[in-house]
Amino acid sequence: MDTPLQRIDDPADQRIAGFVSIRERDLTGRQGLFIAEGTVVLRMLAAAHKAGGGIAAEAILLLENRVDGLRGLLCEFPKEVPVYVASAAVFDAIAGFNMHRGVLALGRRAGVPSMDTLIGGLGPRSLVLAACGISNHDNMGSMFRNAAAFGVDAILFDETCCDPMYRKAIRVSVGSVLSVPYSREGSIEAMLAKLQGEGFVIWGLSPRGATELGDIAPAPRTALLMGTEGEGLPQSILSSIRTARIRQRPGLDSLNVATATGIALHQVATINGLV
Amino acid sequence: MDTPLQRIDDPADQRIAGFVSIRERDLTGRQGLFIAEGTVVLRMLAAAHKAGGGIAAEAILLLENRVDGLRGLLCEFPKEVPVYVASAAVFDAIAGFNMHRGVLALGRRAGVPSMDTLIGGLGPRSLVLAACGISNHDNMGSMFRNAAAFGVDAILFDETCCDPMYRKAIRVSVGSVLSVPYSREGSIEAMLAKLQGEGFVIWGLSPRGATELGDIAPAPRTALLMGTEGEGLPQSILSSIRTARIRQRPGLDSLNVATATGIALHQVATINGLV
Repeated sequence: MDTPLQRIDDPADQRIAGFVSIRERDLTGRQGLFIAEGTVVLRMLAAAHKAGGGIAAEAILLLENRVDGLRGLLCEFPKEVPVYVASAAVFDAIAGFNMHRGVLALGRRAGVPSMDTLIGGLGPRSLVLAACGISNHDNMGSMFRNAAAFGVDAILFDETCCDPMYRKAIRVSVGSVLSVPYSREGSIEAMLAKLQGEGFVIWGLSPRGATELGDIAPAPRTALLMGTEGEGLPQSILSSIRTARIRQRPGLDSLNVATATGIALHQVATINGLV
Repeated sequence: MDTPLQRIDDPADQRIAGFVSIRERDLTGRQGLFIAEGTVVLRMLAAAHKAGGGIAAEAILLLENRVDGLRGLLCEFPKEVPVYVASAAVFDAIAGFNMHRGVLALGRRAGVPSMDTLIGGLGPRSLVLAACGISNHDNMGSMFRNAAAFGVDAILFDETCCDPMYRKAIRVSVGSVLSVPYSREGSIEAMLAKLQGEGFVIWGLSPRGATELGDIAPAPRTALLMGTEGEGLPQSILSSIRTARIRQRPGLDSLNVATATGIALHQVATINGLV
């Protein structure tokens, strides 16, 4: 390993100030900074750092007993990235809660592309996931994980969606937040107008959708639109686009939005030969 | 409403002892008792209580400003079930954390059926979800929600799966834990032997599965088997049954087990005309 390990014995050590009380701070957001947890996400961070798309690792903090197993992965980071090591007691005192995984990294993202830039960079055959009003970080993370699994080229969130760079969303996404390009801005109406102008066939998912999921036809450019948890897509939006439904038992509550996203992406990716 | 409301002004009031510190106690388990959270789950509890399948409501605790909107639903419970009402401060002091929903119920389940009883009660056309080693309550809850959405007749868990009656699993299931029959006992090998003996065609889901999900044939009795988070199904099990895979991009991590369950159930329910 290139980088010498830096031992941390005091939770108040200024070198690891960025890792202090991440659980609470997670809720407030910090400009450009994010927390990556666990080995798999650390690996995604190393890949994103190398790819140079505006994501950089700033520091790594490890539980002492995790170091040996991670030496290979640590070599994937440039040696300017400091690697701190702490005992379990110090590690938990820093993080503010019991961190079973013992693997944390602090990263920085230099903004996200604008929606226009993102769409402008898409090829003639593209699959886009669009969403409005996603407010739950678990669902946000799951949607990224599903998007990565089914070859989504970009995710477009409206301005009312929560921030994918929160710790829990990144963790649930198993790091896919760092690999799948996304934008988060503006209204859902502006997003749909842009997608229509760029030749995307837009399918809004809803229990009241007109077309069965299995009857969606392949198209060079497809956008799948998901609505907010609970309420789903508003009628005004559903009236302006093609709508699809997932066959399910009639009942009080429809599928979870992340699960519905997975089912719909699986179908659309399959018929378009993306998987 | 039949039941007079009982005002609670002291978090230490013995009448609401069952609701105290539910967040922590959730982790320890309590024989037969469970916590239902939120209006939708309360409605499922009322239905389960009426159905008389061994699930009974013991008490209801509401935030004072939720009472008016719930009068209709409260009438669905027998009047022996006490309804307690508290201010936000008292309510949170009882529950031990900030309960935005302000709707809690304490229920009791008189055990779950044995696997043999459960399978013995299934019809000639049945869809079973089977799982081994599910350890995460979010995934557990999501699997129930998906099972309900796609008409699963019974869920069989092996003895290593976590308890679906934990608060968070019930909440994530949107109450489906109270409506979809399940058993939880024994080894996965014993479960598969029983299912085979009863004429079930068993499909194990795995990224290494031999058959594409879309090529699964309809069958009167189908069982879908899911493995533990992370590791999936062990090779010894995969070698002994039919295996299916969900088409997805090659990568480090496969789909979340709950999402994979949703995608597979949607497919199997559709080809068997259950939805």
